[in-house]
Amino acid sequence: MFNFSYYTPTEVLFGKGTENETGRMVRKYQGTKVLIHYGSGSVVRSGLLDRIKASLDQEGIGHVELGGVVPNPHLELVYEGIELCRKEKVDFLLAVGGGSVIDSSKAIAYGLADPDRDVWELFEHTRKANGCLPVASVLTIAAAGSEMSNSCVITRASDNNKRAYDDDLSRPKFAIMNPELTVTLPDYQTQSGCVDIMMHTMERYFTQGGNMEITDTIAEGLLRTVMKNARILHADPANYEARAEVMWSSSLAHNGLTGCGNDGGDFSSHMLEHEMGGMFDVTHGAGLAAIWPSWARYVYRDDLDRFVRYARNVMGVTDEGTDEEIALKGIEAMEAFYHSIDMPVNMSELGIHPTPEQVEEMAERCALATGGSQGSAKVLHKEDMLKIYQMAL
Amino acid sequence: MFNFSYYTPTEVLFGKGTENETGRMVRKYQGTKVLIHYGSGSVVRSGLLDRIKASLDQEGIGHVELGGVVPNPHLELVYEGIELCRKEKVDFLLAVGGGSVIDSSKAIAYGLADPDRDVWELFEHTRKANGCLPVASVLTIAAAGSEMSNSCVITRASDNNKRAYDDDLSRPKFAIMNPELTVTLPDYQTQSGCVDIMMHTMERYFTQGGNMEITDTIAEGLLRTVMKNARILHADPANYEARAEVMWSSSLAHNGLTGCGNDGGDFSSHMLEHEMGGMFDVTHGAGLAAIWPSWARYVYRDDLDRFVRYARNVMGVTDEGTDEEIALKGIEAMEAFYHSIDMPVNMSELGIHPTPEQVEEMAERCALATGGSQGSAKVLHKEDMLKIYQMAL
Repeated sequence: MFNFSYYTPTEVLFGKGTENETGRMVRKYQGTKVLIHYGSGSVVRSGLLDRIKASLDQEGIGHVELGGVVPNPHLELVYEGIELCRKEKVDFLLAVGGGSVIDSSKAIAYGLADPDRDVWELFEHTRKANGCLPVASVLTIAAAGSEMSNSCVITRASDNNKRAYDDDLSRPKFAIMNPELTVTLPDYQTQSGCVDIMMHTMERYFTQGGNMEITDTIAEGLLRTVMKNARILHADPANYEARAEVMWSSSLAHNGLTGCGNDGGDFSSHMLEHEMGGMFDVTHGAGLAAIWPSWARYVYRDDLDRFVRYARNVMGVTDEGTDEEIALKGIEAMEAFYHSIDMPVNMSELGIHPTPEQVEEMAERCALATGGSQGSAKVLHKEDMLKIYQMAL
Repeated sequence: MFNFSYYTPTEVLFGKGTENETGRMVRKYQGTKVLIHYGSGSVVRSGLLDRIKASLDQEGIGHVELGGVVPNPHLELVYEGIELCRKEKVDFLLAVGGGSVIDSSKAIAYGLADPDRDVWELFEHTRKANGCLPVASVLTIAAAGSEMSNSCVITRASDNNKRAYDDDLSRPKFAIMNPELTVTLPDYQTQSGCVDIMMHTMERYFTQGGNMEITDTIAEGLLRTVMKNARILHADPANYEARAEVMWSSSLAHNGLTGCGNDGGDFSSHMLEHEMGGMFDVTHGAGLAAIWPSWARYVYRDDLDRFVRYARNVMGVTDEGTDEEIALKGIEAMEAFYHSIDMPVNMSELGIHPTPEQVEEMAERCALATGGSQGSAKVLHKEDMLKIYQMAL
């Protein structure tokens, strides 16, 4: 086991009607002028934005709005947000949406805290943040876990450059989670979210050591719970209890809990997917589903004990066999699960068909973004990344 | 499922050598003058206090000391601490010890934040706290979970009155957890701690509804992990990995995680034990072991589904039988586990022999402390409490 730190200060209000607490919570965390940041018009049409504004008005908290956040959120809108917030003297960022909106809010909050520097430098890892304005969210998509995490992923649209920056400064002050707000999500988004939640746990699960039993048992239980409820939602998207199980799992999967005591996790699948997302603008969770099986088949022999444990405790493989056979059955069971919720298991099923040159470019960019290598289950270099992309076509 | 809030702002540093980070952490949370609060001389003799003082000195942070905290910590020492801290202008409470020392620190911190009112009023529930000075801990006993919880339990020694007050204001700023610091604990204290950890989870598990699958699976995994590692430590007290599993479980069991979505939990066993602790000064965890089996036998028919689930998923009962039979086998398996780690299953084995008058007095006090009734698995009134005490003799 490795030493670890655990820090999840985000105050969570979970359940029906909690969005009406928004004003009270912003006041509690000393916001006086709020940027309401959101994506598409659905939060306007559903009336959610009006309820949130009423809640802010009730507390006498000023607000301005900025919509238009897209999946794989753009640096260009972050710049626009920073400028608007400066002009309007905004001191609190309220994301109304999913991970993309929260990440865009975090990036704006970093930018506002250090007005003389380009915020993109953080994502290029040429400096660290000195501060971050307070961020919070009203969550409408269960997936990214950004509502409690220290992660932030931004894409520079001008050159399809998708980059991550992690810093505890950006841990949100509060998260309002009403599972009802996710009921109208299209199934593809729901299931992509479930894949993303599972991957946040699996990235921390497949390591070369340092694991704790208490962390493993939580991770395995979370994975089983998400799979069970993803299937329920595939058939019955309005099921409140299943929406709630998935929503709370999304936070627990990425707030640090499922990595306590390990070596920091693998995260190769995420890094490989970032390049697919940057180049082809695919939905993040679906992209992860498309790359994971190839990653798993490429690395499982180097982390065999974990893959066997995964097959037994998560995928429920009960067959007899060699460790290699059991590990492979676990990977096959995962692919069968992906198919059962209409998720892809390779890039072709995902609907992207990169040329050999594009595959080469993704591998090059991934190696660059990871500083040359990535992974714990198996350390990958550029040639490994290239092979996994090729296997995943 | 019920709506819930979740708030665990405590920053955890976990692992070997983390106590040397104390000074840096106090500075991070803006302490300038610290009360180092502790219990017996063991933290002095082991050199731990010297290491902590050196870490504070290195950061230029002033400090005074107050030892003498006893298990079931006394209100009288809390008053002494408040006076000392006022005189010395202390602005940060650092507990070096287990739950008793942390709770004594929390009570002092409440008292300092509201200097014109008697802090005992909080424990009599005649008012709520307006504030609380910052509290943190270097943990030396894995048991109470007070290092991340909002709980505080104090005993007024003059009349053996043991009372609890819960408030998020007292959630500690940070917790330093080095499992090595618990290696020298006597087995009785170690195992009492394991029982306490399990009971914090079980109190939240046995409810009449509102449970979430993700919460249940975490709770069940935590219980199995603690049982496994309690047995390891019974045979091999110096086992670092087992100490670590138990220590991290102690925090997760009582920081709110294992109750998300339920109705607030049962907590009758805790309330029943508080009166035993107040009257006979027993070790809290051992007291819980002595009362739980009688509580369980008294209530299981009213919460049969949960007791069956518990028997299957936690105690590993695989036998066929009626639900009642399976539930009882789960309770018997729990008693067998307690015996396997030399914990009592009734008051006689605990070493206390209350007279009929004392039993009556405990039931009366318990009814008073709970406002007349307590429980979720089954709501208990004074006559129920009396019967459970009588069953537990």
